[in-house]
Amino acid sequence: MSPNATEEDVAAVVARVEGVGGEAFVSKGVVRTIIGLVGDLESFHHLNLRTLRGVADVHRISDPYKLVSRQHHPDRSTVWVGPAGRQVPIGPDSFTFLAGPCAVETPEQTLAAAQMAKGAGATILRGGAYKPRTSPYAFQGLGVRGLEILADVGRATGLPVVTEVVDARDVAVVAEHADMLQVGTRNMANFGLLQAVGEAGKPVLLKRGMTATIEEWLMAAEYIAQRGNLDVVLCERGIRTFEPATRNTLDISAVPVVQATSHLPVIVDPSHAAGRKDLVVPLSRAAIAVGADGIIVDVHPEPETALCDGPQALLGADLRELAQAVRRLPSAVGRVDAGELSRTA
Amino acid sequence: MSPNATEEDVAAVVARVEGVGGEAFVSKGVVRTIIGLVGDLESFHHLNLRTLRGVADVHRISDPYKLVSRQHHPDRSTVWVGPAGRQVPIGPDSFTFLAGPCAVETPEQTLAAAQMAKGAGATILRGGAYKPRTSPYAFQGLGVRGLEILADVGRATGLPVVTEVVDARDVAVVAEHADMLQVGTRNMANFGLLQAVGEAGKPVLLKRGMTATIEEWLMAAEYIAQRGNLDVVLCERGIRTFEPATRNTLDISAVPVVQATSHLPVIVDPSHAAGRKDLVVPLSRAAIAVGADGIIVDVHPEPETALCDGPQALLGADLRELAQAVRRLPSAVGRVDAGELSRTA
Amino acid sequence: MSPNATEEDVAAVVARVEGVGGEAFVSKGVVRTIIGLVGDLESFHHLNLRTLRGVADVHRISDPYKLVSRQHHPDRSTVWVGPAGRQVPIGPDSFTFLAGPCAVETPEQTLAAAQMAKGAGATILRGGAYKPRTSPYAFQGLGVRGLEILADVGRATGLPVVTEVVDARDVAVVAEHADMLQVGTRNMANFGLLQAVGEAGKPVLLKRGMTATIEEWLMAAEYIAQRGNLDVVLCERGIRTFEPATRNTLDISAVPVVQATSHLPVIVDPSHAAGRKDLVVPLSRAAIAVGADGIIVDVHPEPETALCDGPQALLGADLRELAQAVRRLPSAVGRVDAGELSRTA
Amino acid sequence: MSPNATEEDVAAVVARVEGVGGEAFVSKGVVRTIIGLVGDLESFHHLNLRTLRGVADVHRISDPYKLVSRQHHPDRSTVWVGPAGRQVPIGPDSFTFLAGPCAVETPEQTLAAAQMAKGAGATILRGGAYKPRTSPYAFQGLGVRGLEILADVGRATGLPVVTEVVDARDVAVVAEHADMLQVGTRNMANFGLLQAVGEAGKPVLLKRGMTATIEEWLMAAEYIAQRGNLDVVLCERGIRTFEPATRNTLDISAVPVVQATSHLPVIVDPSHAAGRKDLVVPLSRAAIAVGADGIIVDVHPEPETALCDGPQALLGADLRELAQAVRRLPSAVGRVDAGELSRTA
Repeated sequence: MSPNATEEDVAAVVARVEGVGGEAFVSKGVVRTIIGLVGDLESFHHLNLRTLRGVADVHRISDPYKLVSRQHHPDRSTVWVGPAGRQVPIGPDSFTFLAGPCAVETPEQTLAAAQMAKGAGATILRGGAYKPRTSPYAFQGLGVRGLEILADVGRATGLPVVTEVVDARDVAVVAEHADMLQVGTRNMANFGLLQAVGEAGKPVLLKRGMTATIEEWLMAAEYIAQRGNLDVVLCERGIRTFEPATRNTLDISAVPVVQATSHLPVIVDPSHAAGRKDLVVPLSRAAIAVGADGIIVDVHPEPETALCDGPQALLGADLRELAQAVRRLPSAVGRVDAGELSRTA
Repeated sequence: MSPNATEEDVAAVVARVEGVGGEAFVSKGVVRTIIGLVGDLESFHHLNLRTLRGVADVHRISDPYKLVSRQHHPDRSTVWVGPAGRQVPIGPDSFTFLAGPCAVETPEQTLAAAQMAKGAGATILRGGAYKPRTSPYAFQGLGVRGLEILADVGRATGLPVVTEVVDARDVAVVAEHADMLQVGTRNMANFGLLQAVGEAGKPVLLKRGMTATIEEWLMAAEYIAQRGNLDVVLCERGIRTFEPATRNTLDISAVPVVQATSHLPVIVDPSHAAGRKDLVVPLSRAAIAVGADGIIVDVHPEPETALCDGPQALLGADLRELAQAVRRLPSAVGRVDAGELSRTA
Repeated sequence: MSPNATEEDVAAVVARVEGVGGEAFVSKGVVRTIIGLVGDLESFHHLNLRTLRGVADVHRISDPYKLVSRQHHPDRSTVWVGPAGRQVPIGPDSFTFLAGPCAVETPEQTLAAAQMAKGAGATILRGGAYKPRTSPYAFQGLGVRGLEILADVGRATGLPVVTEVVDARDVAVVAEHADMLQVGTRNMANFGLLQAVGEAGKPVLLKRGMTATIEEWLMAAEYIAQRGNLDVVLCERGIRTFEPATRNTLDISAVPVVQATSHLPVIVDPSHAAGRKDLVVPLSRAAIAVGADGIIVDVHPEPETALCDGPQALLGADLRELAQAVRRLPSAVGRVDAGELSRTA
Repeated sequence: MSPNATEEDVAAVVARVEGVGGEAFVSKGVVRTIIGLVGDLESFHHLNLRTLRGVADVHRISDPYKLVSRQHHPDRSTVWVGPAGRQVPIGPDSFTFLAGPCAVETPEQTLAAAQMAKGAGATILRGGAYKPRTSPYAFQGLGVRGLEILADVGRATGLPVVTEVVDARDVAVVAEHADMLQVGTRNMANFGLLQAVGEAGKPVLLKRGMTATIEEWLMAAEYIAQRGNLDVVLCERGIRTFEPATRNTLDISAVPVVQATSHLPVIVDPSHAAGRKDLVVPLSRAAIAVGADGIIVDVHPEPETALCDGPQALLGADLRELAQAVRRLPSAVGRVDAGELSRTA
C-alpha cells in the first residue's frame, strides 16, 4: 500500500480478496503496510487490485503455471518421439541429437542432409515444409509436398521426423506426416495454434519466443498441456538483445532455470541462436555441458545453395567436430546417447 | 571480404551476383576489399554470400519493403474507416481519437464505455471480442457474441468499430461485424493471419510487435499490402526493454521514423505501452505533439471490475483531462480533428 | 518461502529479521507461506535471506532512495543555475531550453553556437570540454582550454554554462569555470565521480545511464544528494534497446515516472537519444508535451565540420522550427519560459 | 546515397573522402548509388558524411580497434599473472580457475575463502577491497586495509591476487598490493580509469559492461592497450536483457566471438551473471566447454553473513562439484590446468 493509504483502503483490499475466497494477511509497518495474499491464483485474475485507492503495487509471488511445473510433478519427464517400434527419448537420462536441413527443398537434398545427420549421430530428423519468413518475398516452404518428402526420407533412414506448423489450419495435415510438431519462435504466443497442437496427439517441440521470458514460455507450454498434451519439449534458441555480433543471444542459463522449475525436457538450438556456422560447435558443446537434454542443428549438403539459413548450416569438418562432441561430452555430464535408449521393436 | 580473401574469392562473389542478373562493384583497399551489390533485392535472397570463402560480412543497404515505402509513394496516405456515409479518416491532415473498453464484457458496459469515449471526443470505437492472453486461465473474450455487442453499440452511437482478430479462421466473421480489423502485438509475425486480413476487404490496424524492429513491423505491413490491401494503419504500443517501471517502453521516436520511411498512417497506444493509468494522459499529449496521426486509449465505466487491463483504463477526471488535450493540442501541431473531416452522408 | 519450507525455516527467517530490529509478518497459505518484512531498509542490506534454507525468493517493495524521493518531500524542487544576478530556474513552473555545441572546438565556433542557441530562446549554454569517446582515437575535447572558452562565451552572451566532467580529479577545475556540472551517461554509475560532484557546491545535471533503470538513476542521484547536494537535475537521453533505427530509444515515459517518484526536476536530451537531426524537433515537442522541465539540444554553426556528433546538431530551418515549438508549446501545458522567471540582479 | 541524390552529391562525398587521403569507389545502380570507402579509419573520424546532402546512411565495415585485434596479431595471447617465481598463465593452452570472496571482510574470512578456493583447484585469488554499489547505503569495501589483507592472504596461500580498482586515483595503491587489476562492469567505459590502469604496469582483468556490445568492450581494451599495456584479460559476466530469472544473461557466445576477433584471453564469471548459487556449476561447465580460457567464481566460508553477494557464493557440495568439473572437463576440450603450466621459481 502507499504510505498514505488509510485503514479503509486496507480494509477494502482485504474485503475484495476475501470476496473471492482468498486470504489476506496484513503486515503493518511504521511507514508502509504490506498485504500478503494467499489462495487460488485463478480466482485472483479479475481482482484489479491496482485500481483500488491506496494500492501502490502488486507483486505475484507464486508461479502462474501448474501442469508444466515441477511443484506437483517433481520428477523430470521423458518425451518419446516416433512411431511404435522406433521411439527415441528426449529427457533427463539421455542426450538427443536432432539434425536436418532448415528447409525441405528436394527429395535428393533432404535425403542427403538426413544421411549426413544420421552419420553424425542424429536420431531425429528435422526439416521445414512451412517456413515463416520476415519477408513476403522470401521462400515460404514447399507445404504438403515438403511434408511428404520429409516423411519419405524419415522412413528411408529410420529417423522419426519433426517439422514446424505455422497455422492452426495445417495442424491436421502436419500431424499426419510428422512424428513431432514444432511451434516456432514467432508463434510461441499464437494461442490458437498452441491449443490446436495440444489436441493433435503428437509430441510438440516448443521453441522459445525470441523475446519471451522463461515464464511466458512455460505459460505457452501450459496452453498445450491444458488441452491434454504433456508431451512437450522446450527449445531455447536465443533471445533478442542489443548485441549485434550474433543473430540472437543464446540464453544458456535458461536450461538449468527451466529444469529447476518445470518437469519438461529442454533442448538447445545453437544454429538459429548464433546465425553463424563457426559458433555452432562451441555452443553445442556448451549446451551439452550445461545439461541440456538435446540439441537441434542445421545441416545441409550444399549450404551455398540452401533456400533458407545457408550461413548457419554445418557440413564437412565442422560436422565431424560436432559429431565427436556429441559422442564424447554427454557421458562427461552423466548422459547416455538417446540412440542407445530407443525403444526399437 | 576478409583481409586474407584471394582474387579468386572476390571473383567467385562477383560471378554469383552476376549470375542472378545483379551488378557487383569491387572497391579494393590496401587491407580489405569491399564489393557493392546493385540489382533486384528479391533475386539476391538465395545468394548465401556469407557461405562463400573470403566473405567477412554482408550488409543490406536498401529497404526490403516496397509497397508500404515512401520511395515510390512519397505522399503520406489517409485510411478511411467506417461504412459509407460515416467514414472517419486516419492520416496526415487529421488527428483521430480511438477509444473504448479493452474487452467487450456486456452490452451495458460496452455502451457505457462507448458513450464515455464519444463524450471525450473519440470518433472510432475499439473493443475486444477475442483476447490473446498469456495465461490459458485468464478471460479469453466473448467471441462472436462480443462482435455482435460491439456492432450494435457502434450503430447505436454512430461510431465505426475496430476489434482484434487473433486467428486466421476468424477473419471472415470479424470482417462481417467490424469496420476495421486489428492485428495485435503478439500476432504481428503471424504471417498466415496477416495474409488473411490482407484479403478481407477492410482496413487493418497493425500493432507493432512488442519486440519487433520498425523494419520488421513494416515488413508485416508489406505482407498485408501484398495481398492487395493498402489500407493499413500502424500502431506503436511500446517495446520490451530492461526498464520495469512501465509495462513496455513507448518508442515515441517510432512515429517520425515511420513517417519518414512509409506512407502509412501511424497512431499510438499509450494505455498498453504504460500499463498504468497515470501515464496515459502525459503520453497521449506526447503522441499528439510528436506528430502521431491518432491515439487509441482504454476507457471503462468501472475499471475495478474490468475483465481485462483494468489498471490502465481511464474514467472521470483523467478522461476529462485527456479530452481537453485532444481538443487543444492537435491544432498546435497543425492538425484538424478527424470528426470534422469525416465523410458523412 | 518454497512450498516445502518447514516451520523451522520460517522461524529462522523471522529470527534473522528480528535480530536487526525489523518485524516479520507471516502469511501462511495452503501451499505457500509469505513473510512480509517491515523496518529500516538499510538494516536489511546484509541479511542475505536468499541464502537461508526454504527461501524461494525475496522482493523489495519500498523504494531504496530517500533524499531524492517525494515521500518525505512531496513538492517538486526547482534548481537555480548561474551566478548571483542571473540565475535561471529548472523546475515545475517553468520550461528551460539548454543548447550549445556538443564539443567546444574554437572560441569562434563556440560563440557562434551560443548566439544561435540564445537566438532560438535558450537560457543556458551547454558545451563539452572533456568528451568521453568510445574510441581512443576520437577527439577527446580541449580540456581546461575548452573550459576557459566556454566560460568566456557564457559571460559574453550572459548565459550560465553547463559542461561535462568525466573524472573525479577534474571536478575542482570544472566547478571553477562552469555554473553546472554534467555527469554523462557513461559515468552515471561512477560512484567516485558522483561523490565528488556532490561536494563541489554547484548544481549537477545527471544524465541517465543508457542502460540504467529509473531506480538505478535515482540511486545515482542519491549518491550526490548524500554528499549534501540536492541541486540535481535529471536528464533522460535514451536507453539501449534492440531497435537500430535510432541511436538509443528515448524513454519519454521516464519523465512522468520520475516526476511521480522524485522531487528533482527532469529534462530531455532529444539529440543524443535519436542521433539524427530530423528527429530532434518532433522529440522536443513530445518532451514539452509530456511535461518535461526542459530540453537540452545540440546546435552547431557548421555541423559538417563538427568534431563530435555533427549529424545530430541543428541549424537553419530546423532550429527555427524548434525555437517556435519552445516559444508556443510550453504554455499549452501550463509552463512559463524560464527566461521570464530568471533572477536577474 | 538516397535514391534522389544527384551527381553533385556523389562528387561532394568523393571529394571529402579524398581530401583526407582516402579512396572512394562509386557503385552506381538503377535506383541507388553506393560509395565504398577505403583508407585509414582514423582519418575518417571527422568526415561527418551523414551531414552531407544525399547521404542516406553510413556503415562501417572494418573493425575500429587495432592493437587488440587478431588481424595483425593472429596468434592468441597468454597473459601471465603473479610475481616472478610463481606466475600463472591465462591463455589458449590452459584453463585457469580464479576464485575468492566477493568482498574482503576480515583476515579470517579472506584466508578461509582462499583456502576453500585453493582446495577446489583455484590458482588465482580474487577478492574486493573497493566495491562499487548501486546504493550509497551498502557496504563499500575496506579500501587500503582490504588490499593489505588480500596481499597477506595471497602470500600465505601462494596465490597471485586480483582485485578491483574503481577510481583512477586509487590505481597506484592497488597496483602496489595486487598482481592483477580488475576493471568492473560499471567502469568499462570510464576512460580515465582505463588509461590509468593501462599505465600501471600490471595485467588487467577487464569485465564487460553489462550493457556493452562486444565491439565496445574491445574498444575499452584498446584504451588500455594504447597506453602500452597488452596484458589484458577479458571477462564475460552477463548482459542486461528483458529476462528476469537471472540477474543478467550470460552471453556464452561472446567467448568464441571474442576469440575469433581478438588475440586477448577471455574468461567467464558465472557468479555475477546468474546471481544464483544453483546456476554457478552448470554455467561453469558451459564456460569450460565453450572454450573459455578460465572462470572466476565467488566462494565464501559463510555466505549467509557475507557483506556482498552472499546468495551467489559457493561452498560445500556445490564447490566440490565445481572442483570436479574444473578437474575433468578442460581436458575434454584440449586444455591443461593452469597450475601445471605455472612458472614457478
